[in-house]
Formats: sequence, C-alpha cells, structure tokens
Amino acid sequence: MYHCGDVVNDITIAYIGGGSRGWAWRLMSDLAAEECMSGTVRLYDIDFEAAQDNELLGNKLCDREEVKGKWQYKAVETLEAALSGADFIVISILPGTFADMASDVHLPEQYGIYQSVGDTVGPGGLLRALRTIPMYVEIAQAIKKYSPQAWVINYTNPMALCTKTLYEVFPEIKAFGCCHEVFSTQKLLAAVLREVKGLIGIDRSEIKINVLGINHFTWITEASYKSMDVFSLYKEFVDLFYQEGYEDSAQKGHWINDSFSSANRVKFDLFKRYGVIAAAGDRHLAEFVPSNWYLKDRHTIEKWKFNLTTVDWRINDLHTRRGKSKELVNGREKFELKESGEEGVKQIKALLGLQDLVTNVNMLNRGQVMGIPMGAVVETNALFRKDSLRPIMAGKLPIAIESLVVRHVYNQESILRASLTKDKTLALSAFLNDPLITIPVDNATQLFHEMLYNSRKYLGGWNL
Amino acid sequence: MYHCGDVVNDITIAYIGGGSRGWAWRLMSDLAAEECMSGTVRLYDIDFEAAQDNELLGNKLCDREEVKGKWQYKAVETLEAALSGADFIVISILPGTFADMASDVHLPEQYGIYQSVGDTVGPGGLLRALRTIPMYVEIAQAIKKYSPQAWVINYTNPMALCTKTLYEVFPEIKAFGCCHEVFSTQKLLAAVLREVKGLIGIDRSEIKINVLGINHFTWITEASYKSMDVFSLYKEFVDLFYQEGYEDSAQKGHWINDSFSSANRVKFDLFKRYGVIAAAGDRHLAEFVPSNWYLKDRHTIEKWKFNLTTVDWRINDLHTRRGKSKELVNGREKFELKESGEEGVKQIKALLGLQDLVTNVNMLNRGQVMGIPMGAVVETNALFRKDSLRPIMAGKLPIAIESLVVRHVYNQESILRASLTKDKTLALSAFLNDPLITIPVDNATQLFHEMLYNSRKYLGGWNL
Amino acid sequence: MYHCGDVVNDITIAYIGGGSRGWAWRLMSDLAAEECMSGTVRLYDIDFEAAQDNELLGNKLCDREEVKGKWQYKAVETLEAALSGADFIVISILPGTFADMASDVHLPEQYGIYQSVGDTVGPGGLLRALRTIPMYVEIAQAIKKYSPQAWVINYTNPMALCTKTLYEVFPEIKAFGCCHEVFSTQKLLAAVLREVKGLIGIDRSEIKINVLGINHFTWITEASYKSMDVFSLYKEFVDLFYQEGYEDSAQKGHWINDSFSSANRVKFDLFKRYGVIAAAGDRHLAEFVPSNWYLKDRHTIEKWKFNLTTVDWRINDLHTRRGKSKELVNGREKFELKESGEEGVKQIKALLGLQDLVTNVNMLNRGQVMGIPMGAVVETNALFRKDSLRPIMAGKLPIAIESLVVRHVYNQESILRASLTKDKTLALSAFLNDPLITIPVDNATQLFHEMLYNSRKYLGGWNL
Amino acid sequence: MYHCGDVVNDITIAYIGGGSRGWAWRLMSDLAAEECMSGTVRLYDIDFEAAQDNELLGNKLCDREEVKGKWQYKAVETLEAALSGADFIVISILPGTFADMASDVHLPEQYGIYQSVGDTVGPGGLLRALRTIPMYVEIAQAIKKYSPQAWVINYTNPMALCTKTLYEVFPEIKAFGCCHEVFSTQKLLAAVLREVKGLIGIDRSEIKINVLGINHFTWITEASYKSMDVFSLYKEFVDLFYQEGYEDSAQKGHWINDSFSSANRVKFDLFKRYGVIAAAGDRHLAEFVPSNWYLKDRHTIEKWKFNLTTVDWRINDLHTRRGKSKELVNGREKFELKESGEEGVKQIKALLGLQDLVTNVNMLNRGQVMGIPMGAVVETNALFRKDSLRPIMAGKLPIAIESLVVRHVYNQESILRASLTKDKTLALSAFLNDPLITIPVDNATQLFHEMLYNSRKYLGGWNL
Repeated sequence: MYHCGDVVNDITIAYIGGGSRGWAWRLMSDLAAEECMSGTVRLYDIDFEAAQDNELLGNKLCDREEVKGKWQYKAVETLEAALSGADFIVISILPGTFADMASDVHLPEQYGIYQSVGDTVGPGGLLRALRTIPMYVEIAQAIKKYSPQAWVINYTNPMALCTKTLYEVFPEIKAFGCCHEVFSTQKLLAAVLREVKGLIGIDRSEIKINVLGINHFTWITEASYKSMDVFSLYKEFVDLFYQEGYEDSAQKGHWINDSFSSANRVKFDLFKRYGVIAAAGDRHLAEFVPSNWYLKDRHTIEKWKFNLTTVDWRINDLHTRRGKSKELVNGREKFELKESGEEGVKQIKALLGLQDLVTNVNMLNRGQVMGIPMGAVVETNALFRKDSLRPIMAGKLPIAIESLVVRHVYNQESILRASLTKDKTLALSAFLNDPLITIPVDNATQLFHEMLYNSRKYLGGWNL
Repeated sequence: MYHCGDVVNDITIAYIGGGSRGWAWRLMSDLAAEECMSGTVRLYDIDFEAAQDNELLGNKLCDREEVKGKWQYKAVETLEAALSGADFIVISILPGTFADMASDVHLPEQYGIYQSVGDTVGPGGLLRALRTIPMYVEIAQAIKKYSPQAWVINYTNPMALCTKTLYEVFPEIKAFGCCHEVFSTQKLLAAVLREVKGLIGIDRSEIKINVLGINHFTWITEASYKSMDVFSLYKEFVDLFYQEGYEDSAQKGHWINDSFSSANRVKFDLFKRYGVIAAAGDRHLAEFVPSNWYLKDRHTIEKWKFNLTTVDWRINDLHTRRGKSKELVNGREKFELKESGEEGVKQIKALLGLQDLVTNVNMLNRGQVMGIPMGAVVETNALFRKDSLRPIMAGKLPIAIESLVVRHVYNQESILRASLTKDKTLALSAFLNDPLITIPVDNATQLFHEMLYNSRKYLGGWNL
Repeated sequence: MYHCGDVVNDITIAYIGGGSRGWAWRLMSDLAAEECMSGTVRLYDIDFEAAQDNELLGNKLCDREEVKGKWQYKAVETLEAALSGADFIVISILPGTFADMASDVHLPEQYGIYQSVGDTVGPGGLLRALRTIPMYVEIAQAIKKYSPQAWVINYTNPMALCTKTLYEVFPEIKAFGCCHEVFSTQKLLAAVLREVKGLIGIDRSEIKINVLGINHFTWITEASYKSMDVFSLYKEFVDLFYQEGYEDSAQKGHWINDSFSSANRVKFDLFKRYGVIAAAGDRHLAEFVPSNWYLKDRHTIEKWKFNLTTVDWRINDLHTRRGKSKELVNGREKFELKESGEEGVKQIKALLGLQDLVTNVNMLNRGQVMGIPMGAVVETNALFRKDSLRPIMAGKLPIAIESLVVRHVYNQESILRASLTKDKTLALSAFLNDPLITIPVDNATQLFHEMLYNSRKYLGGWNL
Repeated sequence: MYHCGDVVNDITIAYIGGGSRGWAWRLMSDLAAEECMSGTVRLYDIDFEAAQDNELLGNKLCDREEVKGKWQYKAVETLEAALSGADFIVISILPGTFADMASDVHLPEQYGIYQSVGDTVGPGGLLRALRTIPMYVEIAQAIKKYSPQAWVINYTNPMALCTKTLYEVFPEIKAFGCCHEVFSTQKLLAAVLREVKGLIGIDRSEIKINVLGINHFTWITEASYKSMDVFSLYKEFVDLFYQEGYEDSAQKGHWINDSFSSANRVKFDLFKRYGVIAAAGDRHLAEFVPSNWYLKDRHTIEKWKFNLTTVDWRINDLHTRRGKSKELVNGREKFELKESGEEGVKQIKALLGLQDLVTNVNMLNRGQVMGIPMGAVVETNALFRKDSLRPIMAGKLPIAIESLVVRHVYNQESILRASLTKDKTLALSAFLNDPLITIPVDNATQLFHEMLYNSRKYLGGWNL
C-alpha cells in the first residue's frame, strides 16, 4: 500500500468467493465509485471459471470514463496466491450446494419444523454451520500464514459462527462481519418519519441508531434523526400498523409473492412484547424464538405475513444470475454501475484513514454488550478509523430479550466446540436446545442424524 | 448468645412458618440430639394455633431424659417478636393454599402442560414465585429492621427466588438456602457403591461431591468415596440400569404408587446426554428442560418412570399430619426423636464455631460457578465456620448444560423484576420463555392470565 | 427544549460556578458562534455579584450582529433556581480559596515534596478532593432532585473524583467530565507532522487518536492523520528532541518563564520507557509517578524543563481577570469573540442530535478500558449523539503503565470512601500510598494532619 | 497408584531439588509417620550426589520399627526419569547460588536499599525471579511431557511467580504453592489466646482463619477458635504489645540475634493502619510496602525490631546442614523423626481421598479473591479432596491494602512477561515501580544493570 494523505494506491484486496455473481459485482460497482483508492482485487473461488469471468468483467470497468476508482482484477487459483501480502480480505462464500441447503431447509419441514431462511439458527443453521466451520478453519489458518496483518471482512452466514471461527483459530486476526439487515431496519425508520411526520427523502444513514444483539437477532435501543427522537415515533407507527402490517407503498401486498419481503408484523409484535426495535427482517427474527410463536405452521406464518424462502427460488435466482453473467462476459449486456447499499468499500476507505465511519459490525464481545458472555460474536456499532476498529459500548438488552439471545450464544458456542472436536453428542445437544425444535425428542434425534448424513461429505473425521 | 468454647447457650432461633407439622418437627428432633447448644426457639406462623401446638410439643421434649439439647419453644404473634435479637432465623412457609397450588399444577394440564411438582419453574413455579416474592420482601425488611446480624436459613420454594429476594431487599443479609435433593443423590451414589462394588453401610455424607448449578437443577462433576472414584462407577451403573431404571431394592416398583419416587431414568438419560450427574429428583429435573423431553404427555412420563405429584395427594398428606399433630398434642402419641436427614442444625452448629462443615447451599453467585451470571442464586458446596459461610469454587458446567441453566437464571431474574415492579408484560415474557411452554402463544397467554387471576389476592397493586 | 430537526430553541443551560472569569466567558464565546441553538444560561455562583457581572456581559452579546447564537443570561441565587428544568448543566467551580490551594501546593514543599500543579493527585490533590467531594455530593443531590434528566458537564478538578462523586450519589446521572489536556497533545502531534513531514495548517481535531487512562494521566495508543500513521512519526520526533526537549518555535524558552509550559521532556521520557504517548502536560504527568523520577527536587525539575505553578501566579492571574471583568462590565473593553478551544458547546450540539461527535471524555469504566477496575472514572473517546453518550472501547494499557494508573485508581477510591465516611485513617492510608510521598512516615503523617487542619472548615463532621 | 479405600500403595512422588538437606528431610519424616500410604520417592537434583545421600538416608528409614509409612527412595539423573508416571511432584530448589543471592540482597544496600529477605519482591526478588522463571519454564515443559496428570506442589520462592510460570507454560497443570508463613501467624494467634484468655495447648490448626492476599503479603480477615472470636482478641493484644512488640516468652529478645525472628511490630502496625491481620513474618511484610515505612535505614529497622537476613548467615547454615548430612550418611548420627510442621504430606493424603483438608495455598485467582486481577497467583484457603483442589471464596481486601497488593500483582505480571520475552525495558519498568526503590532513577537504573550483569549466566538470550 502506498499512502499519501488523501489518496491510497496499490491496495491489494483478496476476495474469497470471488466468482460470486452478486456480492462480487457489488464490490466492483462500489470500488469504481471511489477515486481516492486504487489497486488490485484478487479473485479466488473454488469455481475458478466464475472467478475468471469476474476478472474479465472487472477489468473492463477500468476503461469506462465514469469509473473513478481504477482497479485491476485477477483470478487466482490458490488461497496462498490470493492472500499473500493482501491488505484486505473479503470472504463471501456459499458453504455447500443448493442440494445441501435443500436438506437444511426442507427436510425439517417433513418433521413439522418450518424455517423461513434456515441459514443462521434452527436445524438448517446448525447443519450449515457444521459444514462451514471447517472451511473457515482452513481460511483462518491461511490468513495467519499469508496475511496476518490484513483486515478481514466476512459476509458469509452463519455470520456469528464464521467470525468466531476466524478468531478461534487465529486470535490476533483483524476480522469483522457485515450484514445489511440493520440497514433495512433503518430504511423502515425512514418510512416511519415519512408516515408519521411527512418527512421524505431521508437516507437510512441519517437515522442514527444504537444497535446491539447478535447477527439477525439485533436490536435498536435508540433512534434519532437530527434532533428528533425516532424511537417514540416508532411506537406510534406500530400502534398504527400492528394489525395490518406495513409495507412500502410501492410494494403493497408484496410479501405474498416475494420470498424476501414481509409486512413487518413480527417486528411489531416483538416491539409490543419488549419495547425495543428488532433490527432484522421478519424471516430471520422468527427463527430465533420458540417455534410456537411465528413458525408453528403454514397458517401461523401466513397470519404474520412473511414467507418461507424456498431453495427452488434460490436455484432459479442463481440460474438467472448465471445467464446475466454470460451476457456481461460476452459484452451483450453492459455492467451497470450503481451504489450497492453495502458498506464494504466505505469500511475499507475508513480503515485506510480516508474518513471516519460509525456503523454496525459483528465482532467479539469485549464488553460492548453487557450481559452477553465475553468472547461471543455480537453486533454493535463500531468506530472505523485508520487501521483501527473499535466497538462502541452499546449497553444492555432488556432482560427478557437477553435470555432469548443468550440461548443462541450458548448454542453457537456448543456448535463451534462440536465442530472443532467432531463431537456428535454435543452437536445433538445444541440441536435439541434450539427453540425451533419442539417435536418429540426421538423424532428430533432422527432428523438430526438424517441431516448429518446428508452433509457427510463435509464432515471428514466425524464418527457418523 | 453466650459462647464458652465447646458449648453455646442462650441461642435464639426464630422460626418463620413455625406452625409447620413437618420441617418444624424435624428441627425439634435434631436440636434435641445436640448437647453443645441450648436456647429458645420462637415459633411464628400465620396459623398461630399451629405454632402454639408446636410450642407445647417442643417444650415437652425438655423433660425427656434422652434429649440432650434443652430448648424452650415459644409461639409468638408478630414478626417483630420473633426476630428481635434472633441469632438464627429459619424460614419454611407455604406461600398460599393448596387451592392456589391446584391452580399452579393442574390448570396448565387443561392446556396440555404437565408438571411433576410445579413449585420451582414452569407455569406453577412462576405463579408461586409471584405469590411468594412479596412475602419475602416483607420478611427481608423485618430482618433488616429487627435482626440484621442473624443468619437466615431458607427452606421455602422456589428456593432461588426466595433467597434472591432476601438479598435484593437487604443486600447485607447473611442468608442461604438449603435443600435435600442433593442428599438423595448422594444416597443414590452410595447405592452405586453397593451395586457395583458390593460396599454396604456407607453414609451419604461419606460420598464427597462437587456440586454446581441452580436449586433442583444441580449437577455433580466429581464424586468419590475415600480413595475411590465414584464418578466412573456411576457410568457403569447407568449403563447397567438405563433401560429398566433403578429403585432401591426395598422399593421395587415404588415409583408407580409413590408421588415422590422415581426410577431415576431421567437422571440416567441426562448423564448419557451430558456426562455429568444430575443431582435432584427426576420430578424436579424434568421440569427444567423442554417439555417434549420428559413431560410431553402422560405416556411419556410413564415411560420415564416418574410421577406427577397431585395436589390431592398433598391435601391428604396434610390431613394425616394434622391428625398426628392432634394426637401428639393430646399426648396420645409420643413424639418420635430421630435424625431428620436435614442439615439445618449441623449448619447452626458450624456457624457457632463448634465444628467445620462442608455442604451444599444456595447463595448468590460471587464467582463460585463460572459461566453463570454474577448475583444469580446458585447451589454449590460452601465452608461453614464460626459466623462465616464461604462458597467453594465449583468450576464451570459443560456448555450444553450451562445453556439450560442460564435460561432459568434469566427467567428468574425476569420474574423477580416483574414481581417487584408489578410488570405483567415482563412476567408474561418469562412465562412464554419457560421450556415447558410449547403450546401456541395465544393459548399460553390465556393460561397466564387465568393463573394470574387465580392468584389475584396475593398480587396487590398489579394491574390485572 | 423545542426541537425542529436542524435547530433547537429554548434550551436551558445551568452554569454552576457561573461567576467564573475564564470558563464562563469561553462558553459565551462558543455559544455565540453557533446559530442552530438558542435559549437561556442560568449563572449560579457563591459569588453572586460575579454571576451578575457575567449576566450583564452575556446579555450584551445578543445585540452584536456577528453573534449567531442568541442566548439570555440570568444570574440566579440558588441551586434550585439554576437547575429546575435545566437541559444541560455545566460545573466549573474553585473548591476553596487560593489560601487553601497554597496549603495544598506549598506546605508539602516544606517537607521536601514538590508538586507542579497540586490539584489532581499528590498531597495537594488529595486535600483538594476532600474539600470538593462534599460540594459535589450536594450538587449531585440537587441534580437528582431538580433536573435528573439533564446532561452534566464537569470541568472541575480533581476531575475523576468529582465525576465519580456525582455517580456515587446519583447513579442514573448523565454526567461526564471534560479536559483539554489531550487536545494539547493533539496539537503536539500536529507539530510532529510539521517538524517531521513539513505539513502545516493541520488542526488538532484532524489528528485521530485512541485515548485511554485516567484524567491527566491519559495515554494515546494510536494516532493518525488521514492515511498517515502519526504514531511512528512521533517515535522519530522523540529521538530527535529527547535531549533538548521541544517547544513551539514561537515559544522557544517559554517553559522557563511560563507556569504552564514545558519542553515535553517528561512526555518524551515516558514514551521511551513505555512506547505509548502520554497525553497531558508534563506538569500533570510528573505528579502521577514516583517523586524520584521527575519531582525529586528543584534541580531535577529544571533538568526536565517544566515548572511548578505557584499559587502566587494564580493570585496575580485572577487579579488580572478581575480587572478585565470590570472593564468589560463598564463597557470600557469589548468582549472578544473567539473559539475557545474547549468542546462543551460542540458536545451540547451533538447531544441535541445536531451533529455526530467523537471526542475524549471522563466517564465510569463500563469496560471501555480493560484492566482498570469497573466503575473507576476513566478517560477515553466516546460517541456523542442525540441524548446519547457511549464510550468507545479503548483497549488495554501496557502492563507497566497499568500498574501506575491503577495505583491512583485505588487511591481515588480510598479518598472517595474516606470523604463519604469521614474516615481519617483511610485518608491517611491513601496519602501514604501516593507516589509523591517518599519522605519518612512520621513526617508524612505530620504533614497530613497539618493539611487536614488547614482545610478543616470544609471537613464538617470529621474527627480532626 | 493402587487405591483400596483406606490405603493407597505404589504412589510415585518426584522430588525436584531432592538433594535438599532441609525440605527433603522434612518430607521423609512426615511420610514415615503416615501408615495409609506407601510408594517411591524419586530424588532429582542438579547436585546428584546430594540426591544420592538422601536416597541412602531415606531408605534407611524403612527398617526402623517406628516408621509406619514405608517408602523407597531413588536418586535419578534426569527430569524425565523423575517425572515419568509420577503421581505427585514436589519442587523445592535454590535458583542460583549464595553468591547470586549476595548480589540480590547486599548489592542494593550499597545504594541505600535494605531488604530483610530479598527473595520475593524488591530488587532481590526481581532478580531471583528472572533467574528462576526460565528454570520453571523447563520444569513445566517436562511435566507437560512426562506427567501431565500429576499434582505439583511448589515450595520455591518467589512463590507467586514460580507457580504462575507453571500455569503459563502448561495451563492444564494441577499445581499449587505452599508456604508456612501463615502457619506462624496462626501460632501467634494461639499465643493471643494464651496471653489474653489464659488458654494453653492450642494447636495452630485449631485456629480457623480466612486468608487472602498474595504469598508473603497475605491477610487474615476472620479468626476463631471453637466458638470464640480470636479476631477481636487480637485487637486487645495489639493494643497491649504495640510499643514493646511481642515475642514468645521462651524467646524474649530473640529477634536481636536471630535472623528469622521479630517482635511482630510491623504486623501490629499494619493492623493499626488497616484493621486486618497481616499473615507473614515481619521480614517479609516490610518488603512489600514503601521503603520509607519499615526499611528506610538500619535505625528504622531496629526500631521495628526485626532483622535483615544476611547471606553469610545462610552460608553458615548450609555448612552446618552439610556437616549434619555427612554424619547422617555415615551413620554417626541418627535421623530424627518428628513432625515437620509443613503440610505437603497432609495435602497428598487429602488429594488421595484419605481425608478432607482445608488449608491455605497459592493458586491462580479464579475469583476467590475479589478485586485482584483474574489469573494472578493468590493465597487463600482451599478444599483438598480426592484428586480435587478447590479454592474457597475469600472475599475482598480493604481497599487500602488492595492497592498495595495489586501493585505487586502488576509488577509480577511485568516480570513474568519480561522474563519470557527477555525484555530489559519492561524488567526495568517493574524494577523502578517496586516500592523499595525510592532512590534517584539514575542510580536505580545503574543498580538494575549491575544486578542483571551479575545474573547474566542465567539470562541466556537477553540483550545485556
């Protein structure tokens, strides 16, 4: 890296999962928009061809006039080649295939367990974690070896366990996890200002919040816009929309046919119970609480106005993106430059010292969240500065929420230990302790073993 | 109190709930057996006549030759009269009536929720706590006022919340809670030595154990008899008896017709899951874990070979004890002196400096149990010495158990806050978060309100 | 207060010590420069006339055209009148007279103990604390009664103990302490960029730092300017100037005749010892370490190129400021508007939601400084937002510094307890444990009693 | 090991420093007195001949009729031979020679720094630690390799740092440190009962105490004998003997000519200052506090009625013991069997499950002492049981003592880090922060370098 005050050149970013047709494209777009940085992005992917496609796409951008940030893209074939000397590392991988994910999400349905996402907690999240942790062990070891000084940004789920694994293997790692679920909640708060106060055009970043919890089960305890208290407005808003739910006017009825949408009824219900704002999509929130609350059966889910995201949908979506990639590579379609809404590039900029940034990230708890065990991965605001990332003290959750959160913290710790020591009994303990598991123990145990069997090729060394 | 080295005279013990026909009699028996102590026992009870009966019974003992410990008994009509100048305070009350307890235990059954005891956790434990906490607030305030230096021994359930309330109101109080569930487990370990090693005649106090957890959900991580490791023998024992269960030979089939017995199958199952010894009766243990494990329905309960203790049984039992009391008072029956198996008197003796004692008690967590929040009431060994009670570091539970335990710790904290601030929403949160509540939220909420209504006369100031 | 997004009107600020001819004028100047806020400043002072003078001065400003922030000033005669309904409270008092301060600073000199300031630690700091704490008890009680929701900014020394007393009396208080010593160190770092890199015109606020420690003994572990690492430049700088010391070119030789200046040699020496940047004036730093390091005798002090601030100097300085005040009140001199360099007004603005602010403040340690006891008052960066002040995790000091810092933390806790319970033995313990006390115990004890006697009128209820 | 309930045979004890003519002989005596244990003691010493002498002495004992505990002794030439398969390990070594100790103790005297022992803290303790830590690193590595399951008893000073080093290198080690200084204080308390109450014949073990602090700077906060409070009697006793001091009647004036005696005046003075009982010899206590308190100069030391232990004395003493060893080996003198007063053998017995034992030991702080950093080596009571050693919660020291204690805790941590990383700057920091160092920094720095040079042969890899 070459620093000269306002501009930094010769930056090296390693992208693990660099063949991605979503996150990688967003990074390209955002890098292109920043003129104060330049350098090389190394694309590493187990699908090397996909990485090569992205290399081609990325390098084309340099020639476009509107591109301010000039970067070279290079597909590489090994972790070593990607990481050696890297300044920043972005990790965004799919741990396993959609077939694996089908087992995560849909096999439990045969036992009466419904999951709206299935990638964080619940039976699906647990199995996904068991597949992912060994991959992250390998990545962490490589970082320790090839680029111990690099900053590491993780986008992969299950977020908390991926991040925790990095620190477990290499405690000095400078890693953090990013997720956009809180951003969506800020957008909802902007909508609150519009609906209750008639204020329009407010960007989500202008809504200042205090955030705490664990990823996908995060909470907002303070919210303001300039000198206005948005928290109290949210209360009015919930009273207004509790029964019907609230969707962006442009999207009325959207949740019915969109896997990712909801009417925010789960969020409103949690506010009524606990008095603080749940800051993730309803699909995620519902999975963290006892299944009899929002995920009891299809009827209950419908009543709460959110959707189960099917793996079929994901397969179709990937198919579409693959097609688009081909068009882009062939030059039949032009790569569209637009702000992604993600913050990775802003974070890199801040870590280079080019601007201060306060935003929410996932890091080890060093005390920023009181009442949650030290060393757990928590999500709070943090201050980004030159080569410095410091959590901001976020306080303590209401005790009733703390209990729900800590249950998952303990489960995550159990899952990590189970994965590292290949301990089936401990993994089963965590499985049976998950709030979505309320079926008879024998059935649950059978389900666990089936799911484990389905992921067997990722579980080398386990006594299955 | 008058100390002269080996003997202490003029001791004053205040007994709150002193009309009891169980615990009070056991205390009388045990005091009668110790010649190194003498003094007065003040009996306070809301049923003053019952206290007077016990006064009469107690004072009769003094004349019997075989009685070595000479004590005066005196029924008193106010807390002030009981407590002023007391050296020790014993609290053993029934918080409410059997009618209240019927609501605690049997109303939930109508919603499909089974409880084997219903006095510690679960819907019954929660409601019982809401009735009891205000009584303990009053008691704690009186102790602070009238006898702040006294040692306080609590026997009332819910143990953890009663003890916690005392400290909440009067942080300098010298209180601890006692329970005999761990003693029964020591007896089981003596049976292990008999069954596996053929050793007979071993007293439970010779089985040295390390204890940790919360009351009625306590765990043993070390067990030895002289130089022998009993822990490893227990493993053999469980393998032997897992399917059939184990009952004392004299009691074969006992669990079928005895409310309090079990075949220890829950205990064995928990050992198989977690590798440490659960140290409470199966009836209690079953209530701390998700209802689908052992309390799903009557069939499941039968399979695990334990019983639901009905309130009818308790009513009959009380009736019997009342009759017996009448006979004793009338002199038609003679008070039988025998060691109770409780440890209150031994603890008093140790606190007077007359012997060292190491045994398990319930106290605030000051670090003796790692991984459980500071300030929670935990059960571990402690060292009793003259005017000194110090917990012994008990270590950390396996993480999978910790999660189960901490869930109740959080719930207990919520219940305490809810009770002190009369916060119905918070109480409902705790209710819905209890592992026995897996019915639909709407039904659970309705049950909660009915139960609250049934206990309304104890809930002054609540907005019901 | 009336909020309307970008502007807040009808703000009420209570100024305790509002007759001040330094801090109060700076506040007026800074308020005048901000157009987004307006309201009333209530001036309370035990010297009511001084407050009235400032009322007059303040109100004159409103008419001046260049004044953007319009405020009413009002001298009030009671704490109640000052505090009732206040939104912000500024406390900046002189605890005692200069005669008291003469005892603090110069009496110890007769025993061979030299102090360069004598208001924070050392014998002078201790006595000053004993005088001040009862005043802060009174202030905290009044705030609890009249304005429990107000934000409280403390400027008075000893900073840590004043702030701690506020929290001790009223744990829910929203208080923090501000001090400009760190700002001066930022200016020194700007000088480093000038001397080493030739960069000029850098404002101290552009030097981003991580701050941790206790007030006047604060440390910087990270420092950057844009994408440049200033920390490593400081190392070069110290190597360059260690022997000679460094003074601003405009002030060459300044430390010789200026009570407040130094050549930063103490700071450089501490850097050589510990590898992190001490962030306070040398006069303050020298008092926190064993007296044989920098304050052994006048010769040693001279060698390290800093000065002892005499009370005579302070008396002269006050005389000058009093004269100036008279001229201003009479209108013979015009009140000069200029940025004070203090941050109080910026902090108020941020707490109103009108801008984000990250700066260093003194607050209770909730974990922001690892290794220093929880609940001690520490100085770190914090994030100011609408009605929200959150410390930023600052990490851990090198162990060798931690030891020096913690020694004072314990002493401060002892002094607080001694003051609250009027415990002379405990106060003497703290006195004898101060690093500046290396004279024989008998002499030190005699000095302690003399100093205590000199402050006797502030020590009502002590057994002197 | 072969367990059969009441007796354990085939025990293997490894004795590192087994050529000792003091500690080793005491162990032999104590083992001989216990009939419930037998086995082999392996003697390892860098002076192999000395170990062989002890082998011969030990094996002779077996034939004596009055010897109940039959043990084989065997001198071995390597750590591996000593440790492989050991059940217990005793470490009692002299780290360096008396010439080294002369530098530790007497070189500082040339700079005006007096030390009464010089083996724990102060300049002598620091240098001794720098020599010892590398030896303990080696021992800990060997234990990890050859006998990871063994219990390790350390007798070597500096106790805290030796014990800490074992845990630093091998965190799972089952090690603790023993010291008899607290026992002597119990004897003094027995004398209190004799002097104040006329009670004679009380054994020190009958005085029940609560102990907390760090080795050689330990404190007693509770003391009782049967039902009597000895703590309050001590207060009377101190009032009686403060001026004159107290020595056992048989030893009146003893302190004048006995290196190890004192009149307990330091202990009494500390009681007057802090209200709790210092539980170590005055020679040790005096070294932990600022030098101006008790060690200012020879006159001050005389006033406080204790002695500086010279290295000449130690050399003479060793000479005597060597002579005695020769006589014993030659059979010209008979080995005298008597209870040593040490507790090693009782501890081994308890760890085998043959009796419960509560006594004071040095272990990592897991919370048993509140207010002292976790992980520091502290001294408190602990419960010994079969293969189990658990600290007893000892509470918190008065804050004024805590500050004195913590200063050494931090210094010990600095010394450990300095030793492990061979960091001269950090070692010097700790040196200058020691309370005995109040001489000018330049002189102190020179002394440090001289002392370091004198120990250079133990400091391989340091940049001296």
